[in-house]
Amino acid sequence: MCRSFRTVFRVFTFLCAFWLVLKAGNLEAESHRFVLIDTQTGQWVREKTLSSKNFEGIAKASGWSVRKEVLHGGKQESVDLITLENGAMAIRIIPTRGMSILDIKINDFRIGWESPVKEVVHPQWVNLESRGGIGWLEGFNEWMVRCGLEFAGHPGVDQFTDNTGAEAEMMLTLHGKVGNIPASRVELIIDKAPPHRIRLRGTVYESMLFGPKLKLSTEVSTIPGSTELTISDEVTNMGSDPQELQLIYHTNFGVPLLSEGAEFIAPVQSVQPMNAAASKDVEAPWFYAAPTKGFIEQVYLMKLYADSNSETLICLKNSEGNRAATIRYNVDELPCFTLWKNLTTIENGYVTGLEPGTSYPFNRRVERSHGRIPVLAADETRQFTLRYEFLNSPEKIKETVEEIQKLQNDRPTETLKSPPE
Amino acid sequence: MCRSFRTVFRVFTFLCAFWLVLKAGNLEAESHRFVLIDTQTGQWVREKTLSSKNFEGIAKASGWSVRKEVLHGGKQESVDLITLENGAMAIRIIPTRGMSILDIKINDFRIGWESPVKEVVHPQWVNLESRGGIGWLEGFNEWMVRCGLEFAGHPGVDQFTDNTGAEAEMMLTLHGKVGNIPASRVELIIDKAPPHRIRLRGTVYESMLFGPKLKLSTEVSTIPGSTELTISDEVTNMGSDPQELQLIYHTNFGVPLLSEGAEFIAPVQSVQPMNAAASKDVEAPWFYAAPTKGFIEQVYLMKLYADSNSETLICLKNSEGNRAATIRYNVDELPCFTLWKNLTTIENGYVTGLEPGTSYPFNRRVERSHGRIPVLAADETRQFTLRYEFLNSPEKIKETVEEIQKLQNDRPTETLKSPPE
Amino acid sequence: MCRSFRTVFRVFTFLCAFWLVLKAGNLEAESHRFVLIDTQTGQWVREKTLSSKNFEGIAKASGWSVRKEVLHGGKQESVDLITLENGAMAIRIIPTRGMSILDIKINDFRIGWESPVKEVVHPQWVNLESRGGIGWLEGFNEWMVRCGLEFAGHPGVDQFTDNTGAEAEMMLTLHGKVGNIPASRVELIIDKAPPHRIRLRGTVYESMLFGPKLKLSTEVSTIPGSTELTISDEVTNMGSDPQELQLIYHTNFGVPLLSEGAEFIAPVQSVQPMNAAASKDVEAPWFYAAPTKGFIEQVYLMKLYADSNSETLICLKNSEGNRAATIRYNVDELPCFTLWKNLTTIENGYVTGLEPGTSYPFNRRVERSHGRIPVLAADETRQFTLRYEFLNSPEKIKETVEEIQKLQNDRPTETLKSPPE
Repeated sequence: MCRSFRTVFRVFTFLCAFWLVLKAGNLEAESHRFVLIDTQTGQWVREKTLSSKNFEGIAKASGWSVRKEVLHGGKQESVDLITLENGAMAIRIIPTRGMSILDIKINDFRIGWESPVKEVVHPQWVNLESRGGIGWLEGFNEWMVRCGLEFAGHPGVDQFTDNTGAEAEMMLTLHGKVGNIPASRVELIIDKAPPHRIRLRGTVYESMLFGPKLKLSTEVSTIPGSTELTISDEVTNMGSDPQELQLIYHTNFGVPLLSEGAEFIAPVQSVQPMNAAASKDVEAPWFYAAPTKGFIEQVYLMKLYADSNSETLICLKNSEGNRAATIRYNVDELPCFTLWKNLTTIENGYVTGLEPGTSYPFNRRVERSHGRIPVLAADETRQFTLRYEFLNSPEKIKETVEEIQKLQNDRPTETLKSPPE
Repeated sequence: MCRSFRTVFRVFTFLCAFWLVLKAGNLEAESHRFVLIDTQTGQWVREKTLSSKNFEGIAKASGWSVRKEVLHGGKQESVDLITLENGAMAIRIIPTRGMSILDIKINDFRIGWESPVKEVVHPQWVNLESRGGIGWLEGFNEWMVRCGLEFAGHPGVDQFTDNTGAEAEMMLTLHGKVGNIPASRVELIIDKAPPHRIRLRGTVYESMLFGPKLKLSTEVSTIPGSTELTISDEVTNMGSDPQELQLIYHTNFGVPLLSEGAEFIAPVQSVQPMNAAASKDVEAPWFYAAPTKGFIEQVYLMKLYADSNSETLICLKNSEGNRAATIRYNVDELPCFTLWKNLTTIENGYVTGLEPGTSYPFNRRVERSHGRIPVLAADETRQFTLRYEFLNSPEKIKETVEEIQKLQNDRPTETLKSPPE
Repeated sequence: MCRSFRTVFRVFTFLCAFWLVLKAGNLEAESHRFVLIDTQTGQWVREKTLSSKNFEGIAKASGWSVRKEVLHGGKQESVDLITLENGAMAIRIIPTRGMSILDIKINDFRIGWESPVKEVVHPQWVNLESRGGIGWLEGFNEWMVRCGLEFAGHPGVDQFTDNTGAEAEMMLTLHGKVGNIPASRVELIIDKAPPHRIRLRGTVYESMLFGPKLKLSTEVSTIPGSTELTISDEVTNMGSDPQELQLIYHTNFGVPLLSEGAEFIAPVQSVQPMNAAASKDVEAPWFYAAPTKGFIEQVYLMKLYADSNSETLICLKNSEGNRAATIRYNVDELPCFTLWKNLTTIENGYVTGLEPGTSYPFNRRVERSHGRIPVLAADETRQFTLRYEFLNSPEKIKETVEEIQKLQNDRPTETLKSPPE
């Protein structure tokens, strides 16, 4: 018996190994790949447009294309920009700015916002330490920018362990570095099998001696002809010591989606104002006012309900009720949701931020004291997946709202009326 | 009566509108235009020489040219430089450094100075926060650099209103940012009508969320064959809140114009030393010494007399009395004049600065306390015009001196002997 | 007698002058020269490979080449890199990073180390002021990087004389600026006479108004076919005031030369731990442990014995005893030797630094208080010469060890057991 068990076990092991080899081979066979940037091999494509014509066996009629270009002049000089046109929408991704997403255009409808910063700013112009640690804002105009990785949130002094093993202090700057680090590797991947998902992968390192050794492997993907995009990120601790991680997906919407009467819809378990200005409207932060001169930003900290797989769904609906943006994500991966309402004038930057995060945007020192900072062990990887969809019919929006109501499931929303101490 | 008045009024309105349309059309018709840089449209000319040959109807014999190039190597790498050769002098303008003017050459006579900084430094190498906030000096070698726009003058802590509406503090760095911001748009304009004035326009934005939203529209212009140039600047508050503005035209002269016996001539209403080193020579700051080892810089704060249109005139005359530079400007626009004498050795940077400004170069905190900071309302624009001329005959210099004496008109010069407290 | 003496003297003077003129002419005649970068003349070669074929009269068979290229993508974008292949080894020099030496390859054996920083980082990505003044580490991965010139060593506040002649304070950042300043001039020189030494000269300026005016003229040279290289540096004070100077040759070795059982061999007169972690192993800092998780860096301050010409010799030997690196230098030029042992895991940056310097790596404030900061008078130049050799036979290593023992000459090594106060 024992002997035949061993035989079975050996056969099983062999089959497993065989399957793994096959699987690895398939990974290559399953997709077309094109490297745009790779600093290790010295590959770097200055300007190139790729489309279905460049890859065998991909449907000719899909009408998608990927264009890599280099911007010039002003603060844009030397910025790498990639425009992923999927046949239904154009997504602009900025390898030079940590694979942030500048904006999305669906025909003439732009998803994004009007920042006082008009150019795609090369990080060489951004001194994160400037203005008491808020220099990050000098480049901030993206639809989606990641805050992190070593730290995110408000500037301020925090403790760290220095090269001598001693406790030291350092100034953390607003929202960390990753949005101002260029990707070291960018690769385009097209699934050979229908629906021929287009994937743009970027690798960004936040790594140094006596500092973090974090690697962000990000993928923005979309199906040709759809108005959906998925962000699939992995953050790995490449070092041999435990490493704190903060990551906030700072997703920003301005006109035309945002205007008076627009509405934020989510299955909210609890909501609390982060600052005094938010306290006065905490009973109904869901509604948006018109651009308002002298408006002081309001920030709300939320916990969201989710389904049994920890998946949640949030929605920003326009005032006419015929356009919306939705985000589906996992609250185990991103337990802290922050709603940022900066309803100032258009000139000053009328915008709302929907911000799923590992933490809230207090300084890391504060977040740590509340136990909201994940720590990655050596070689540990965490995954973060966000699925964005842009809706353009009242029917679809209605379905979404119903789905959110189902997540809420008549459970109460706890409202804390004043900011945390 | 009333009815015919209305008719007249309507006709008048129509004629006004017609005239405006015509005028707008004329603006295009009046000039040749060539865009060299425009980040909004993606235009960027790497290398190009334009001259009368490129534009119809411009006199062939004028001998002017405009050359756009990109510098390479060292700290110059990627610097955009424009050389405007008007037939009598060559003006070098640096779009990458906020449209500063590097120097002017009249045949072999160079207007400018010998800074210890020898290259045209790309701002990527300048950390304004460095050395306790005087990092600006690591790129400083221009004949004319603007200090501003949000702040100018000495480094130091000042108050500002942060994104939460609260009073916060920030470190202001020496002479502000605008000299280290690249122009987002540069356009060459040639008047079709004689004398075919050549205009180089540049737009520089000092703009960000929760910060200033200032736009500098600058024009450097000159008439072919002349040794005059005019700076016509406009600063606009693009934001919807009031915004402080500081602007100093830091115009610097070294050898050969400056040497022992050179003289500063101006209609001085009052003069006061800014620092202790200036106190000892405050009775006669007009004269220049030879390069002096160990010389400590002297700074003098002045009010100047002007004519009934508020126009004043100042002059820097060489020791032989056969070369001079003059500046005509409006004391309502630029009420504060600062004379900077840094008469150290040639190696250390022998130079004098003639600095018309909205303010004196104290920290903004100090200038504000003296009411010397203009505040721009939302959408408000201020204009600043400076006309520079380079003279090369004793006769012309004599005329200039007489004109200055006429402005002084035997009125006294008040001398305050010690620095302001 | 007196008269004939004068005649003899005149003839002697004339002959000396004649010889000097001849010599100057010979300098040109003695070598082939090729300018790769010169910001004063506007010369800049983007990509070029030079070899014996490009120069007349140089042996065809020597197999050397010099390749200039520009790196692209990620933090490497726009970095100038020069690979000097001498037939026996390939030396990679980075003009954009102050002429640092990235690494050396002898066949497949790499001299260098595995930093968590994987790219050749353009200084535009390095904010020296970051992380409390240790931003330098964000670009640190070279085999040999100079620390200096105005200051080197630990970050911290130090006094300096400001532009008004007053004592002021400024934050010194880790290891100074020179490793993050691009060369303004790079020239390749090939000796016409055998052994046709190949010299790569670079000029780096650390110069500004109201700051240092230091010029580093560096030469890396090697003889075709050898595994030796010589660094011949000159630092000149171009200003007219005395100027402090600090210079540390931070030479770093990781795997494969460094591993458990590797050994540092030197004629040590005295050794003292710089930090507490070093104290416990101060009796035998010569031996290296394997990569060790949680290892805290150990730093040792040493004085070395030298021969009658003040020449000393140090050696890093691998564990097998068949590979070694040696450095010969002058202890009058570089009196302070620092041994840095950072025996952490490979991922975290397993490395040892052999660091001949004008000073130890305390903050300049501390070094000054111990009289360890050379001051250059106006126009004064100091020379620094280091000869590196890479050995690959036990016999040669044995000879080297014997030579070091001869320098030690049975004299004692004084061991101070605790760090300086």
